Amino acid sequence: MIYERVALIGLGLIASSMAHALRRDRLAGEIVGYARTAETRETAREIGLCDRVTDTAREAVEGADLVVLAVPVGAMGPLAEEIGPALRPGATLTDVGSVKRAVIEAVTPHVPQGVHFIPAHPLAGTEYSGPRSGFATLFDNRWCILVPNGADRQAVERLAQLWRGMGANVDEMDADHHDLVLAVVSHTPHLIAYTMVGVADHLERVSHGEVIKYSASGFRDFTRIAASDPTMWRDVFLTNRDATLDILGRFTEELFVLQRAIRMGDGAHLHAYFTQTRAIRRGIVEAGQDTAAPDFGRAPVTAPG
Amino acid sequence: MIYERVALIGLGLIASSMAHALRRDRLAGEIVGYARTAETRETAREIGLCDRVTDTAREAVEGADLVVLAVPVGAMGPLAEEIGPALRPGATLTDVGSVKRAVIEAVTPHVPQGVHFIPAHPLAGTEYSGPRSGFATLFDNRWCILVPNGADRQAVERLAQLWRGMGANVDEMDADHHDLVLAVVSHTPHLIAYTMVGVADHLERVSHGEVIKYSASGFRDFTRIAASDPTMWRDVFLTNRDATLDILGRFTEELFVLQRAIRMGDGAHLHAYFTQTRAIRRGIVEAGQDTAAPDFGRAPVTAPG
Repeated sequence: MIYERVALIGLGLIASSMAHALRRDRLAGEIVGYARTAETRETAREIGLCDRVTDTAREAVEGADLVVLAVPVGAMGPLAEEIGPALRPGATLTDVGSVKRAVIEAVTPHVPQGVHFIPAHPLAGTEYSGPRSGFATLFDNRWCILVPNGADRQAVERLAQLWRGMGANVDEMDADHHDLVLAVVSHTPHLIAYTMVGVADHLERVSHGEVIKYSASGFRDFTRIAASDPTMWRDVFLTNRDATLDILGRFTEELFVLQRAIRMGDGAHLHAYFTQTRAIRRGIVEAGQDTAAPDFGRAPVTAPG
Repeated sequence: MIYERVALIGLGLIASSMAHALRRDRLAGEIVGYARTAETRETAREIGLCDRVTDTAREAVEGADLVVLAVPVGAMGPLAEEIGPALRPGATLTDVGSVKRAVIEAVTPHVPQGVHFIPAHPLAGTEYSGPRSGFATLFDNRWCILVPNGADRQAVERLAQLWRGMGANVDEMDADHHDLVLAVVSHTPHLIAYTMVGVADHLERVSHGEVIKYSASGFRDFTRIAASDPTMWRDVFLTNRDATLDILGRFTEELFVLQRAIRMGDGAHLHAYFTQTRAIRRGIVEAGQDTAAPDFGRAPVTAPG
């Protein structure tokens, strides 16, 4: 047991996976949960996700030695303001938001003296959301990035221990570098996937039926990412604006170079470019960050009955 | 048995999967194979992929009642020129290229009178290539598009029967529409994935190690597609230039609109866009074209030892 009472605020994919992982490894004495909508709280109670589900956020954090903000990035500030006065001195406050600079700016003003605020970001997820979508192995062999931002080292080490207990590897980084790295490995890829799906959706010369039927030729991979939670992703782009626009600028620049190579018939350029990109895939598989099985080892799917 | 002798020219992922599927369902009396490199022919012999592997393409097609061109699109024309004189009258000549208009233009001049040329495109694949990468279930519940282009109906129906026998669903389409549809569901997604991986590769402020470690947050999905065969994809873009540039134009247009929404802080626009795109994912899963399992049901991967 690493914390006596963990309060999970927001009961979506990440928090519900934390609940399962905390229980699997007996890392928390008690797990208290709160979600904004009555429906989510009801579901959480029904499936026994937490030991207790409270009807207010303040109630949930009372007496907790770890409080986890697991809500969309744009909701972190108001939430911190609401619970701030109820936080126990000596407690650790953390979050799981995909953007760190904006969360630090929104939350810090509401953190009382004596509370350790340690922003964090577990790089794990699926395309599903909500309290039923969590599972205990979500964080296994994934990375959790802590952004201690000058916080007490002992408190940081304790939180790192919790994440390791839930199966994750732990790194530390400063907020700006985190936001840039995530713009590359997550935010821009998501925006591009959303865009590609939007293009197919808006075309009139190719029907929706055709897009769906023939999607196994590449397109379907993009649709998985583009099925992620709209509120979460809206907030990511609004709060990691500069880094995302920076990487998007790079992206369109490179895309235009390839586009020009296609227009000019420069096969040598295309071939060289497509050869280089294979190395990163190998690195990812060798680092244990993706499966080597063809097509992700995707289960064969059968025609509807 | 649908054909007495099938000649597979080019022994990569598609042809080797056809060999396995033809045997599984006893669809061919004899399977003869040929590949350009001695190394591939040797591998094919070693694993017993075909009944016979010949040292020239002409030898392979002699006496075959079905000849399958399974080489990169840019190699189809010279190959057709080479084998044309050896094709048996009444035989069917088909291909599996990802582009149809360019293949028709390159191959048709070399098709002798009395030979049925029926272009085809099975929409199936993985990120692997070569004679060892094939497997019998690759085409199960995938679509194969035939582009009969005025060919004899009986010959078309026989080829359709073969594809159904190998597990595929069969559609017919004209060449230009095929090339446009594929630009949307396959060619542009691949180019975008290659570009995203290239951007990450070229960034100096984020290291390769970071890109690899944190890739599970979205990026890794793009690297799978971007690990596909460089020669095949070079030829696709060179030969489906107009449709790809058309869809790329749409893509950058939509991307700029989203980019502007991020810059201006237009959260309502982003949220609406990200909500719409979920419907296509649902359609794909309901149509049996992708798994509903979270994260493609990807096998958990563990840290290297």
